[in-house]
Amino acid sequence: MARLLLISNSTVHQRGYLDHVEDELHDFLESPARVVFVPFALYDRNRYAAQVAARLAKVGYEMTSVHDFSNPQRAIMEADAVFVGGGNTFRLLKGLYEWNLLESIRQTVMAGMPYIGSSAGSIVACPTLKTTKDMPVVQPPSFDALGLVRFQISPHYLDPDPLSTHMGESQEQRILQYLEENEAPVVGLREGGFLRVEGESICLKGSAGARVFRRGHQPVEVSPGASLEGLLAFHAVEALAS
Amino acid sequence: MARLLLISNSTVHQRGYLDHVEDELHDFLESPARVVFVPFALYDRNRYAAQVAARLAKVGYEMTSVHDFSNPQRAIMEADAVFVGGGNTFRLLKGLYEWNLLESIRQTVMAGMPYIGSSAGSIVACPTLKTTKDMPVVQPPSFDALGLVRFQISPHYLDPDPLSTHMGESQEQRILQYLEENEAPVVGLREGGFLRVEGESICLKGSAGARVFRRGHQPVEVSPGASLEGLLAFHAVEALAS
Repeated sequence: MARLLLISNSTVHQRGYLDHVEDELHDFLESPARVVFVPFALYDRNRYAAQVAARLAKVGYEMTSVHDFSNPQRAIMEADAVFVGGGNTFRLLKGLYEWNLLESIRQTVMAGMPYIGSSAGSIVACPTLKTTKDMPVVQPPSFDALGLVRFQISPHYLDPDPLSTHMGESQEQRILQYLEENEAPVVGLREGGFLRVEGESICLKGSAGARVFRRGHQPVEVSPGASLEGLLAFHAVEALAS
Repeated sequence: MARLLLISNSTVHQRGYLDHVEDELHDFLESPARVVFVPFALYDRNRYAAQVAARLAKVGYEMTSVHDFSNPQRAIMEADAVFVGGGNTFRLLKGLYEWNLLESIRQTVMAGMPYIGSSAGSIVACPTLKTTKDMPVVQPPSFDALGLVRFQISPHYLDPDPLSTHMGESQEQRILQYLEENEAPVVGLREGGFLRVEGESICLKGSAGARVFRRGHQPVEVSPGASLEGLLAFHAVEALAS
């Protein structure tokens, strides 16, 4: 059974790194535990890994970074959990391809190893990176990502500002463009929110609601505590409709 | 000599489509003229082309859309100017590849045919699409674009909001990530601004300043009327420094 904790953002305004999910993290993954970190979303991997290791040590997790191993696939398979950090989604996915890690992460997580993702790390758990807001600063060989879940996440979801005079598209307009071209539903995950996935169950948690976008439907607001597996089971819905 | 009019955005707040560049457009391209339009950035090409044709007809240009031709390469070569409209940059670039238009546009523009680009249409005039803020809703075969100029544009440039509690990256932070991975300088083109390129000359015009980002330098503010060819001649600067 796949178990995932998919976080919109690692740092909430005026709080420290991962502070807002510390309780949830402990509930999701018993300490002590050995966590393997994927640092590819930021340019300086050593610095990023050191910062996250220090933070996780405080809550009882021993962290090693996948880029420090000569056999990174084995590092994934031998860990108690994997944590994929945020940053630039294109850089992260390109790194996963270059290090040949997609298949080992997919197999290990589908076999039950807990997956923790934050921001870009939450997006790459989805079928593709197509709902990122990041700049495409590097080109990965494919937009296909881990596909650990069957929906897309759009993290750092920002509601349109009714007072704005800016003419660039809002995040909602961009997601609607995504749905012009793609089938998988999208969870617009506001800052402070996160999804806890336990097999077929998908629960929205945290301090913020989310907005769910599905092809051919009006967007739906959901509140923390809501179960999303019904809304997001688009294959079942499509099958019924046809 | 390449001639380009590269617009940050087609519609300024509380004005109509292209209203803010109408005078400049007339100065750039004498009417009457036959303009060939590239509609690939929006999903509904027929509707997009009809809207733009109606607008351009009012100012004396006869517009046809490249997607209506059985020989679109020839349509490009026989027009007086090409206009590449805004929308989603990934969709636009994918369309240019699918319709096999990159080389004919490149050759024709480098031979002197005026190029007008708006938003996504301005980005694809650059070496790559790597400075777009759009969602990667479809995957083009490559991020390489037309390369009509040697710098990048980041349109709809928005300054960081000092009062924001949002933790997602600002456009400036995203551009700095681009420069961690890439060499070409970036013009953050605010709404209302546009660039007029005449061979080696690059002039910022319109109602808004721009912010120029170069690897290894502090960002520089430039005002309408400024000549940017010195700032953007990064090959020359790199050569001198080495």
